[in-house]
Amino acid sequence: MKISARNVLPGKVAAIHKGPVTTEVTLELAPGLQIVSTITTHSAEALGLKEGAQAFGVIKASNVMLAVDE
Amino acid sequence: MKISARNVLPGKVAAIHKGPVTTEVTLELAPGLQIVSTITTHSAEALGLKEGAQAFGVIKASNVMLAVDE
Amino acid sequence: MKISARNVLPGKVAAIHKGPVTTEVTLELAPGLQIVSTITTHSAEALGLKEGAQAFGVIKASNVMLAVDE
Amino acid sequence: MKISARNVLPGKVAAIHKGPVTTEVTLELAPGLQIVSTITTHSAEALGLKEGAQAFGVIKASNVMLAVDE
Amino acid sequence: MKISARNVLPGKVAAIHKGPVTTEVTLELAPGLQIVSTITTHSAEALGLKEGAQAFGVIKASNVMLAVDE
Amino acid sequence: MKISARNVLPGKVAAIHKGPVTTEVTLELAPGLQIVSTITTHSAEALGLKEGAQAFGVIKASNVMLAVDE
Repeated sequence: MKISARNVLPGKVAAIHKGPVTTEVTLELAPGLQIVSTITTHSAEALGLKEGAQAFGVIKASNVMLAVDE
Repeated sequence: MKISARNVLPGKVAAIHKGPVTTEVTLELAPGLQIVSTITTHSAEALGLKEGAQAFGVIKASNVMLAVDE
Repeated sequence: MKISARNVLPGKVAAIHKGPVTTEVTLELAPGLQIVSTITTHSAEALGLKEGAQAFGVIKASNVMLAVDE
Repeated sequence: MKISARNVLPGKVAAIHKGPVTTEVTLELAPGLQIVSTITTHSAEALGLKEGAQAFGVIKASNVMLAVDE
Repeated sequence: MKISARNVLPGKVAAIHKGPVTTEVTLELAPGLQIVSTITTHSAEALGLKEGAQAFGVIKASNVMLAVDE
Repeated sequence: MKISARNVLPGKVAAIHKGPVTTEVTLELAPGLQIVSTITTHSAEALGLKEGAQAFGVIKASNVMLAVDE
C-alpha cells in the first residue's frame, strides 16, 4: 500500500506505554531523534508492536506545524 | 513558550512551495531525513521562512500513526 | 505496509479537483456513499490518482467525530 | 447546525469501549463497512451513545488520506 | 445535530480569503479574540459564509494543544 | 519559539482530568468561554499544568471547522 501521507519515517520502537484505550509509542528515528505517537491500544496490539521492532511513523503533512526561535 | 506537542524536531528549511492560501515546506532533520509540512501562506510569511533557515517541525503525538512492513 | 489507522476504506476515485498546493479527491465507497479528502497536489500526482481508479480512504480514529440528531 | 466537515456519514453504533478519558466507538455505515472513532468519554456520555443507536461519523476532509495498492 | 467535538465556539465571520481549493476564514469570538480556520472552498460556499455572519468554530479536543510561558 | 499555528489563545486552567495515558484539560479563555484539550498525561505533567495557572490553547487552522445554524 502506498499512502498519500508525505511523512513515512523509518525507526525502531523504543518504548510502549499501554493504557486501556490509548497507547503511547516512542519511535527512535536516529540516535538522539525520537518521535512519540498515540494510537489505539487495539492498533498497537494488531500491529504486534514490541520494543526493538522496526516500524514507521506516518504523518500527514497538514498535521506538521513549523516554529522558529524568536 | 513550551508546548504540549511531544514532537519538536529541529531542522533546516530545504524547500518552500507557496500557494495562494496553503504553503508546503520541506524541512531537513538530518542528511536524507526530510519532513513535509503544509501551513497557511500567511504563517509561512509571518515566520519569515526561507530556504536554509533553521526551523522546527512540531507534531502532536495524536497525529502520528505507526506502520509496519507486512 | 500495515498501518495503525483504524479506518482503511476501499473505494473508487469519483472526482479530482487540483489546486496549486492542495488537491481535493472524492472517493466513492459504495453507491451513494462518498468521502472527500484533501491531500497535497504532490501526493495526488505521486499516487497517480485518476477518476475511476481503485483507492483507499485512510483515517486515524482520533480524527473521527460522532454526532447525533437532536 | 450545518458543519463545514465534508464527511457526515450516517450509521449505527456497533460497539463502545469506554476508558477513563477516551472512548472508542465503532459505527456501522453499511453491512461490512465500519468506522472507528475515539472521542472523550465525556462526549460519549453527553451524546448518550448506546449500541444500536443511530449516529453520524463526522470527518474533516483534511484528515482523510488516500492510499493505493502497489 | 449534536456533535462530539468539545469546542463549539460562537462568533462572527471577520474575514474570508478564498483560494482555488482551500479558504481561510477568520472568526471573531469576542472583541480582540479571533480564531482562524481553513476549510475547503467548496464548504465555505456551501455554508454561505459572508463577512459579518454568525458562525461557530468547531474543534475536536484532541486537536487542541497547550503551551505555557517559560 | 514562534509557531505557525494560527490560534494561540491565552487562558487559565479551569480543570484537569488525568487518565493513564491521556489527560483532559479545560482552559477558560474569558468568563463563560472555555475550550477543552486532550494531551498526553506525560505532557500535562511536563508542562506542570495546575488549576488556576496561565496557559495557552494552540490550534492549527486546518483543525478548525466552521458551522452555521440552519
